[in-house]
Amino acid sequence: MNENKPLIFLTNDDGIEAPGLNYLIETVKDMGRLVVFAPCVSQSGKSSAITVDQPLRVINYPSKYENIEMKGVTGTPVDCVKLGLYLLGQERPALLLSGVNHGSNSSFNLIYSGTMGAVLEGCMAGIPSIGFSLLHHSWKADFSECGAVIRKIVGDVLKKDLPNDVCLNVNIPARCTPKGIKVTEASYGHWTEEYTPMVDPHGRTHYWLSGQFIDDDPDNINTDNYWLNQQFATVVPVRPDQTSQASIPVIKEILGL
Amino acid sequence: MNENKPLIFLTNDDGIEAPGLNYLIETVKDMGRLVVFAPCVSQSGKSSAITVDQPLRVINYPSKYENIEMKGVTGTPVDCVKLGLYLLGQERPALLLSGVNHGSNSSFNLIYSGTMGAVLEGCMAGIPSIGFSLLHHSWKADFSECGAVIRKIVGDVLKKDLPNDVCLNVNIPARCTPKGIKVTEASYGHWTEEYTPMVDPHGRTHYWLSGQFIDDDPDNINTDNYWLNQQFATVVPVRPDQTSQASIPVIKEILGL
Repeated sequence: MNENKPLIFLTNDDGIEAPGLNYLIETVKDMGRLVVFAPCVSQSGKSSAITVDQPLRVINYPSKYENIEMKGVTGTPVDCVKLGLYLLGQERPALLLSGVNHGSNSSFNLIYSGTMGAVLEGCMAGIPSIGFSLLHHSWKADFSECGAVIRKIVGDVLKKDLPNDVCLNVNIPARCTPKGIKVTEASYGHWTEEYTPMVDPHGRTHYWLSGQFIDDDPDNINTDNYWLNQQFATVVPVRPDQTSQASIPVIKEILGL
Repeated sequence: MNENKPLIFLTNDDGIEAPGLNYLIETVKDMGRLVVFAPCVSQSGKSSAITVDQPLRVINYPSKYENIEMKGVTGTPVDCVKLGLYLLGQERPALLLSGVNHGSNSSFNLIYSGTMGAVLEGCMAGIPSIGFSLLHHSWKADFSECGAVIRKIVGDVLKKDLPNDVCLNVNIPARCTPKGIKVTEASYGHWTEEYTPMVDPHGRTHYWLSGQFIDDDPDNINTDNYWLNQQFATVVPVRPDQTSQASIPVIKEILGL
């Protein structure tokens, strides 16, 4: 193992056994020394959730790679990042990668994304951090067209770093060779008919999250969803600070302050 | 019941039986018709997490208020908002309030906050939404000084609305009468020594989240933590869109695009 290679921290939200994570390992394993801390079970939709009321455990999973340890964490993606960095101690990763997610994290969906929760956490810890998502939910999704996009972005960020307090949300179209990469903003959208009510065998009503995502601005060429529909991969720069600086004067006026 | 009063949707992350939620109900119950959808159990640190792998149930809790139904939801704060709005159907709330949280959601902590997860969800649904937090973790915290701040902000927002895509993160100092209200930005900070390793009775190592929050910029008068330390209540305008518009040109340059 080349000790001079950069340390790359890998995680995801689909769980340590997900094919997307395995694909990410295969894609970047010659670009650095890899360490994997990923959730033991699927943590989709966990956003930046942290585990406060239970302790966490670390489980050593079998690894098919000689120099890559696979650490399973009994928590959320953010728990994986926090606990992984704590256990690494003084050695700080040069890069944090999360994914490849089985399913889109474009548009407003990134707010619910465990993949991007991990990326935001890495960013707040001062590590250049990137999330990758393929627009295909299936466990058997074909990731093979993601490799070129991932290697280009990882290579450039390792060489040139990222600005402080900015991380990247990369989405890759499915079932095609991406026509290129666009740096863009997140599109606006909303979900409709979000629940399906059902009755269980004991007569009790329960509700399954379901619904459909509607892009509110599908023709806006400044958005990720527009370019994903044109078969481009998209890169949205994301910041952990959610303050709306622009509206501070408006809110002062509303409150008469 | 006055049918002309605005409908106000209440939720929190400490659970439907939390004293902070009860205090919020008492404080605003004359300002509108209230409906409560809150988690059955504590959901602290759940951020914008949604429940995707389990169905949700709604449980009717006993209410001590004649015209206020208390609906417990077996999910996260965002689940409460999504399912609550679904069940309300055509009737849209004029306002969504979350809290009063037992503990601070100032600075970067809002990214982990279930209280603010619910507020961001309300905002994305087009409802003026406000989160309230008291800087005291105890279940027995004294909320009595929060009332004047809450009533002022709720009154102004009901009268004048909020800008689209902006919600409010209100933090209130503990054990004092707030000296006033400051509209400000979130401070930068980080957590140190985030875990306490322990060994359970069966000899297995596990890790409890712990650590200490460090304000990285304590003298910055443009931040919430600065003013909270001066015993002011703070209002941070927050946006759900996490795109860093300002860094799009920088990222284009890094990727040579």
